[in-house]
Amino acid sequence: MKILVINGPNINFLGIREKNIYGNTNYKDLCAYIEEQGKDLGLEVQVVQSNIEGEIINFIQEAYGKYDGIVINPAAYTHYSIAIMDAIKAVNIKTVEVHISNIHSREEFRRKSVIAPACIGQISGFGTYGYVMALMALKNC
Amino acid sequence: MKILVINGPNINFLGIREKNIYGNTNYKDLCAYIEEQGKDLGLEVQVVQSNIEGEIINFIQEAYGKYDGIVINPAAYTHYSIAIMDAIKAVNIKTVEVHISNIHSREEFRRKSVIAPACIGQISGFGTYGYVMALMALKNC
Amino acid sequence: MKILVINGPNINFLGIREKNIYGNTNYKDLCAYIEEQGKDLGLEVQVVQSNIEGEIINFIQEAYGKYDGIVINPAAYTHYSIAIMDAIKAVNIKTVEVHISNIHSREEFRRKSVIAPACIGQISGFGTYGYVMALMALKNC
Amino acid sequence: MKILVINGPNINFLGIREKNIYGNTNYKDLCAYIEEQGKDLGLEVQVVQSNIEGEIINFIQEAYGKYDGIVINPAAYTHYSIAIMDAIKAVNIKTVEVHISNIHSREEFRRKSVIAPACIGQISGFGTYGYVMALMALKNC
Amino acid sequence: MKILVINGPNINFLGIREKNIYGNTNYKDLCAYIEEQGKDLGLEVQVVQSNIEGEIINFIQEAYGKYDGIVINPAAYTHYSIAIMDAIKAVNIKTVEVHISNIHSREEFRRKSVIAPACIGQISGFGTYGYVMALMALKNC
Amino acid sequence: MKILVINGPNINFLGIREKNIYGNTNYKDLCAYIEEQGKDLGLEVQVVQSNIEGEIINFIQEAYGKYDGIVINPAAYTHYSIAIMDAIKAVNIKTVEVHISNIHSREEFRRKSVIAPACIGQISGFGTYGYVMALMALKNC
Amino acid sequence: MKILVINGPNINFLGIREKNIYGNTNYKDLCAYIEEQGKDLGLEVQVVQSNIEGEIINFIQEAYGKYDGIVINPAAYTHYSIAIMDAIKAVNIKTVEVHISNIHSREEFRRKSVIAPACIGQISGFGTYGYVMALMALKNC
Amino acid sequence: MKILVINGPNINFLGIREKNIYGNTNYKDLCAYIEEQGKDLGLEVQVVQSNIEGEIINFIQEAYGKYDGIVINPAAYTHYSIAIMDAIKAVNIKTVEVHISNIHSREEFRRKSVIAPACIGQISGFGTYGYVMALMALKNC
Amino acid sequence: MKILVINGPNINFLGIREKNIYGNTNYKDLCAYIEEQGKDLGLEVQVVQSNIEGEIINFIQEAYGKYDGIVINPAAYTHYSIAIMDAIKAVNIKTVEVHISNIHSREEFRRKSVIAPACIGQISGFGTYGYVMALMALKNC
Amino acid sequence: MKILVINGPNINFLGIREKNIYGNTNYKDLCAYIEEQGKDLGLEVQVVQSNIEGEIINFIQEAYGKYDGIVINPAAYTHYSIAIMDAIKAVNIKTVEVHISNIHSREEFRRKSVIAPACIGQISGFGTYGYVMALMALKNC
Amino acid sequence: MKILVINGPNINFLGIREKNIYGNTNYKDLCAYIEEQGKDLGLEVQVVQSNIEGEIINFIQEAYGKYDGIVINPAAYTHYSIAIMDAIKAVNIKTVEVHISNIHSREEFRRKSVIAPACIGQISGFGTYGYVMALMALKNC
Amino acid sequence: MKILVINGPNINFLGIREKNIYGNTNYKDLCAYIEEQGKDLGLEVQVVQSNIEGEIINFIQEAYGKYDGIVINPAAYTHYSIAIMDAIKAVNIKTVEVHISNIHSREEFRRKSVIAPACIGQISGFGTYGYVMALMALKNC
Repeated sequence: MKILVINGPNINFLGIREKNIYGNTNYKDLCAYIEEQGKDLGLEVQVVQSNIEGEIINFIQEAYGKYDGIVINPAAYTHYSIAIMDAIKAVNIKTVEVHISNIHSREEFRRKSVIAPACIGQISGFGTYGYVMALMALKNC
Repeated sequence: MKILVINGPNINFLGIREKNIYGNTNYKDLCAYIEEQGKDLGLEVQVVQSNIEGEIINFIQEAYGKYDGIVINPAAYTHYSIAIMDAIKAVNIKTVEVHISNIHSREEFRRKSVIAPACIGQISGFGTYGYVMALMALKNC
Repeated sequence: MKILVINGPNINFLGIREKNIYGNTNYKDLCAYIEEQGKDLGLEVQVVQSNIEGEIINFIQEAYGKYDGIVINPAAYTHYSIAIMDAIKAVNIKTVEVHISNIHSREEFRRKSVIAPACIGQISGFGTYGYVMALMALKNC
Repeated sequence: MKILVINGPNINFLGIREKNIYGNTNYKDLCAYIEEQGKDLGLEVQVVQSNIEGEIINFIQEAYGKYDGIVINPAAYTHYSIAIMDAIKAVNIKTVEVHISNIHSREEFRRKSVIAPACIGQISGFGTYGYVMALMALKNC
Repeated sequence: MKILVINGPNINFLGIREKNIYGNTNYKDLCAYIEEQGKDLGLEVQVVQSNIEGEIINFIQEAYGKYDGIVINPAAYTHYSIAIMDAIKAVNIKTVEVHISNIHSREEFRRKSVIAPACIGQISGFGTYGYVMALMALKNC
Repeated sequence: MKILVINGPNINFLGIREKNIYGNTNYKDLCAYIEEQGKDLGLEVQVVQSNIEGEIINFIQEAYGKYDGIVINPAAYTHYSIAIMDAIKAVNIKTVEVHISNIHSREEFRRKSVIAPACIGQISGFGTYGYVMALMALKNC
Repeated sequence: MKILVINGPNINFLGIREKNIYGNTNYKDLCAYIEEQGKDLGLEVQVVQSNIEGEIINFIQEAYGKYDGIVINPAAYTHYSIAIMDAIKAVNIKTVEVHISNIHSREEFRRKSVIAPACIGQISGFGTYGYVMALMALKNC
Repeated sequence: MKILVINGPNINFLGIREKNIYGNTNYKDLCAYIEEQGKDLGLEVQVVQSNIEGEIINFIQEAYGKYDGIVINPAAYTHYSIAIMDAIKAVNIKTVEVHISNIHSREEFRRKSVIAPACIGQISGFGTYGYVMALMALKNC
Repeated sequence: MKILVINGPNINFLGIREKNIYGNTNYKDLCAYIEEQGKDLGLEVQVVQSNIEGEIINFIQEAYGKYDGIVINPAAYTHYSIAIMDAIKAVNIKTVEVHISNIHSREEFRRKSVIAPACIGQISGFGTYGYVMALMALKNC
Repeated sequence: MKILVINGPNINFLGIREKNIYGNTNYKDLCAYIEEQGKDLGLEVQVVQSNIEGEIINFIQEAYGKYDGIVINPAAYTHYSIAIMDAIKAVNIKTVEVHISNIHSREEFRRKSVIAPACIGQISGFGTYGYVMALMALKNC
Repeated sequence: MKILVINGPNINFLGIREKNIYGNTNYKDLCAYIEEQGKDLGLEVQVVQSNIEGEIINFIQEAYGKYDGIVINPAAYTHYSIAIMDAIKAVNIKTVEVHISNIHSREEFRRKSVIAPACIGQISGFGTYGYVMALMALKNC
Repeated sequence: MKILVINGPNINFLGIREKNIYGNTNYKDLCAYIEEQGKDLGLEVQVVQSNIEGEIINFIQEAYGKYDGIVINPAAYTHYSIAIMDAIKAVNIKTVEVHISNIHSREEFRRKSVIAPACIGQISGFGTYGYVMALMALKNC
C-alpha cells in the first residue's frame, strides 16, 4: 500500500514557527518520523511539501494511479482552497486530513475546513502523532 | 492508565440507526470492541452511554480523580451543549472527541463542535476505528 | 395500529401556563381527550410526558418495534434538540410534529423546527385539536 | 359554513409536476376530492386557483362578507408574498395554510412562511389529505 | 401638470383593513380626496389601483409620455418588487413614494424599500394627508 | 424543434429603458431579430412578453407538450420569483436563462438568480446576441 | 402652535458641503426660509442647530412643555443615535423626521433610521422643501 | 417569604472548576453562605442543584404554589435553554438570574441569555455575593 | 470609600419618560435616594448626569485619582459608545453598570452592552434599587 | 482576431474528474475541439492550462498587447481569486467567463463569481459547447 | 502649509491608559513631539483634543478656509461616528487618519473605520511616530 | 539594516493597470524609486515581485535570518491569503503592510486585511510614497 503525505504552506518551518502552537520538532525530523512510522506499519510512504497551492494540486494529480492513499495537512489552505478540494474529488483517492494543532479551538476562521468534505476523515490536535494516526486510519478503514 | 469512554444520545442505536451513515456494527459489539482494543493497548477502559445531556455531565464529573483520560462521542450534543464543554473544562481531564461519521462533510449544522475547544483534539470520519485512534492518542500524546 | 403521543417540557403545566397562548384545558384533561379521540378513530394510543430531553429520546427508542406511529409535541426542544431529531431518524417510525399554538406567528426563534425534517409533517396552531388531526394523519397518510 | 379553498401557482400542474415530491393525483381529481370531503363534513366548499399573486389577493378580497373560512396553499408565494399576507389580515377571515409536501424538510428557503403569521395555523406534509385536515380544523377550532 | 397616483395591493380595502394602523377613511373617499386636493393645487390627477404587481408596472409604462409625475403607494410590494423599481427607472418619470403608516416604526421587513432608490423621495407616516404632501412635492421640487 | 422565448417585466421598454445598461435596440426589433436568427438556425421560434409574474407562469405551463425548449429572460423576477422557478421544474422543458446585461457585475441583489437552478444554463452580459447564443445552446446541448 | 426645528451635525455647512447631494442653499438662508414659510402657515417656528449629539438631546428636553411639535433633521446621527430616539420618546412631543437628500437611495448604512420609530413620520428626498412639508404635516396630521 | 435557589450544570464543581474565573469557594460553602445570608435577611432559603436541564425545569414546576421567589444561576443553559425560560413563564414566580462571572465580558456566546426575558432582572459579575444581591432584590423589588 | 454615580442621556427625565418602563420616581428624588442609601452604607457618594457622551467621558477621567469606584447607567450609550468603554479602561477604576429596566427582555438592540466588558459586573431590571445594589457590590466585591 | 483560452485548476482532469458533473470528454480532446471550432469561426485560438493561481495571472499579463480576447474557465478560483479578477482589469482585454457545469445550480459557494465583474459576460452550464459560445460572443459582441 | 492635528476621546490619557497597547509617552509630551517634528518639516502645526464627538466636528468645521490639511486620530469614534466622516467630507480638506496601535490586529469591531472613506489614507500601528508619518504624507502626497 | 520589499500580484503592471486608482508610475520606476529612497535612509533594500501566492511565501521564508524587516504590498492576496499571514508569523520578522490606494475607501471586500494582524502596522492610500513611509517606520519604530 503506497501513501503520499502532502504538507502545505509553512509546515516546512516547523520548529521555527510559533513553537507554542506547533511544537519543537523541526521539519526534517518530522519527515523522517513519518516515513519510519509508515515503514513500521508496512506502508510505503513518501512525504512532499509546497507553499504553492497549485503545486499541491499537481502533487494530488500526479498521485492518480500511483498511490493508494493520501495524507494531507493543507495548513492555511484548509480554510479557503476549493481548488485543492476539487483536486481530491477529481483523483478520487482515499484521503485523510491532518492538523498538528487543534484547529477547532483556535481563531474562528481556522475552525472551518473547505477541504474536509472531500476526505474520508479529519484528525486535529494530536501534534505530529496525528500523521501516524492518519496512516493507521488509511490502513484500517 | 484509566480511560472513560462516553457515548452520547442515540449511539446505543448503532446498527439500527441510519446504517448508510453509521454502519452495521451494533452497539454491544462496539463496546466489546473498544474494551478489547483498549486492553491490547494496555489501557483500562470503561464504556458508558446516556441519552441525557446532564447524565453525560455527571459521568464527566464522576471521572474527576478516577480517570486519566476521556474519549467522548457527544453525538448530537456536539453542536449545542455548552454545558458538556464546561464540564470537560471543569474536571480538566485530557479529553478526545470522536465521531463515527465525518461531521465535516454533512449538514452545515453538524460541522461545528462547541465541545472541541475543551478537548485536546478531534477525530472524525473513521467509523468505529476512530475510538481506537482516540485511545492511542491518549496513550501517546 | 398503536400510537405513542409524546409531550415535551412544560406541557404538563397546561391550564396553568400562559393561558392566553395555550388555552384553559389542563394537562390531565388533554391526556384523556387524546386517548378518547384515539379510541374513536380505532387507534391504541398512549400518552407520555417529560421535561428531560434525554427521556424523550428514551421514549422514542422504546417505541422501536412496539409502536406504528408517533405524535410529538417537542415544545421548547423543537427549536434546538438535534438529539431528538436524530432519535426519530434512528427508530424510523412515522412521526407527526404537533404544536398547540401557531409557532409561525410567534417570536422569531420559535418559527424554526430542527425536528420537522425527521417528521412526515407538522401541524401548528389548532390548539389541542391538533393532536386529533395528527392521529387522523397517521391513520390516513 | 362556507369555505373558500385557494390554490397558488403551479398547483394546477399536480400529477405532472415533480411527482416524487407532490404525488400522482392530478389537479382536477384534487378539486373533486376536496369538494366531496367538504360536503361529507357539512361544509360548502369552493376551490379556485391562480398563478397570479394579485389574483389570489382578489380571491381573498372577494371572500370578504361571503365566506366563513379560507384554506390557502400559497405554493411558491408562501415564501415572499407579503401582499397575500396583508390581504388575509385585511379581510380578517379565519384562514388555514396548507402544504402538500413537508416544507420544513426541504430547501432552506422553503422553510419560512411569510403568510403563516396571518393564519390561525399551518398544516404541512400530509399530501392532499392536508386539505381535509384544514377543513376539519376550520370546522372544529 | 398631469399626475398619476398608483395604489398597490389591499389599499382598496382601506376603511376595512386593520383600522388601528391605516385609519377609518374608505378607499372611495381617499380617491375623491386626492383628486379634489390635486385640483386645488392646479394639478390634473388620476388615481388607479391594482393588486397585481405586473399591472402596476403596466400603469407605470402607460404613463410614459402622458404624465409629468407619479405618486406611488406600492404597499406590500414596497419591500420586494424589484420589477416595479425597474419600471420607474425605465420610464424615467419623477416619482414620489408614499406610505399611509410610518413603515419605519413597524416590523423589520417593512422598514426597507427596494423601490425608493428609483424615486426622488419618500413620505411615510402622515396618513392620507401624505398623498397631498406628495402632490405638493411634485409641484414644488 | 420549437422554442418559446419569454421576456419578463420592462423588457418591452428596451430602447427607452436605461440605454447605458440595456443598449439602443427597441423591443420590436429585438423580437424580429430573435425570430429571424432562429429561422436561420432551423428553429421555430415564438417570442412573448409580460410584466405579470403569473402570466409568465401561464406561458411556461402552456408550453407543456407544445415546445421543445424555452429561452427565458426573467428580468427583475430573476431575483425573487420562486414561482417561476417552480413552473420550469413543473413542465420539465429544457430551459436557458438569458440576461442582456452582465448581472454578475451589477448591484449585489442582481447577482443571484433563484431561477437558474431550474435551467440547464445561464448566459449573461452579451447584449441581445445572448438570445441567439441561447437558441444555439438549445440546439446543440 | 409652536414648532422647534432641530438640525443635526454638519447641516450648518449647507452650501459648502457636497453640493451635488445637498444643493446650493446656504444655512442662513435655510433658516430664514423655514421661519418665513412657518409664519405663512400660521406657526411659530424656531430653528436651532448643533453638531453635538447630547446638545440635540438637550434641545429636545427643553422643548418639553414649551413646544407643540418638533421637526428634526438628525443628519448622521439618524443612523446610530439611540439616545436621540430615547429623548423623543421621553418628551412625548409629536415629531417629524426630515432629510434633505433621499436617504433611501444612498449608501446602505444611510437607509436605516434608528430615530424614525419615535417619530410620527419621515420625509426624505425633497431638498429644503422637506422642512415645509414637515411643518404642514404637523399642522394637518 | 420563601425563596428557591437553583444552580445549573457544573456549579457543584465550584472550587475545582476554572478557579481564575469562578474563584476558590467550594460548592458546599456556597450553599451554606447563601442559606445563612438568606436567614439574616429574614428569608427562608433552599438551595438545589442539577446538571440535567429537565430536572431544573422540574425544580421550577415544583416551586409552583410553594415559593415566593426563585434565584437561578442557569450556568451553560443560560445561552440555549428555551425550555427553562418557558418553565419560568409557566409558573409565573418572580425570578432573578445570577451569574458568578461577568458573562458580558467573556466569549461572545456567553453574552446572550435566552432566559433573562422571563426574569425580572439579571445580576452578573459579582462572584458569590451576587446570590445575596439577588435575595435582597427579591425582598425589596 | 468614594463613589461616583454617573447617569447617561435622558435619565434626568425620569418620572416623565415612558413611566411604564422606568417607573414614577422623578430624577431629583432618585439622586437624593442614592446619596442617602450610600451614606447608610458608609460610602461617600456623588451623583452626576449628562446627555453628552463626551462629558460622561470627562466625568470618568476626572474621577481618576479621586474616586474608588464608579456606578454608571450609560442609558442609550450602553449600546454603541466604545468611547465610554475605552474611558473606563483608561482610568482603570472598579466600575459597575446599572440599568433601571431589564435590558435583556427589551428590543434586540438593547440586549447588548459594549460597555460591560470594561466593568466588573452588570445589574439590570431592579428599578432604582439597582443603584443601591451597585453600591453594595462595590463595597463588598 | 487572436483569442487566448485559459483553463484553471483540475480542468486538465476532465474525463477523469466527477464525470456525472463534468462529462466524459477528456482534456486533450477538449483542447482540439476548441481550437478546431475557433478555426471554423476564423479565429486564431491558443489554449493553456494551469493549476497555479499566479500562473493564470501570468498568462493574462502575457496576453497584454498580443491577444484581442480571453476566454477563461477559472474553475475553483472563480469563487475567491480577487487576484485573477485584478489581472483581467489590469490588462483590460475583453474577457468571457465560461463554466462547463451550471454553477448556479450547485453548492451555495459555487454560485458566486468574484471574477465575473471584470468580464463582459458569463456562460454557465452548456458543457464543452460553452467554449464555442464564448468564442462566438467575442467575435460578435 | 498649516496642519491641524485632532485627537479624539481618551487620547489625553496617554501614558495612563492601557500602556501595553498605547505605550508610556504621556499626552503633553505627545503634543510637544508632534509640534516639534512638524516644525522640522517646515509645517505650521496645531494640536487639539476633545472627548466630545460634536466638538471634533466643530474643530473640523473651524479648519475650513484656515488649514491646508488635517491629521485625525478619532480613537473610539473611528468605528461609529458617521458624523465625523460627514464633517470631513463637508469641509473637503485633505485628511489623514492615524492610529497609535494597529487597529487591524485588535478586536473585530476595531478593524473597521467608518471615517477612512473620507480620508486620503490611513496609518495604523506605528505608535506616536504615526503622527510624523501623517505630516510627511500631507507634505508629500 | 536590511529590508526586503515584496510586491504581490499585478503590481508589476503599475502604469498599465487602472491608472485612475494606481497612478502613472510604471513598475520599474517604482523599484528604482524605492531602492534610491532606501539608500537615502541608510537602508539596504531589495525589491521582489510575484503573482504566485506560494512564491511570496517562499520570499518571506528566505528572508529568515537574512533581513531585518519586510515591507509587503500583498495586493489582492491581502484579503484572503491566510497562508501569507502564517508565513509572516512563522519567520517573526518585523513587517509593514503597504497599499498604494486607500483600501478603506474602496469595495467592501478590499477593506479587510487578513494579513495585517501579523504586521506591526499598515499604511494605505499614499500612492508610491507609502513605500518610503514604510521604510521610515521600520527604521524608527
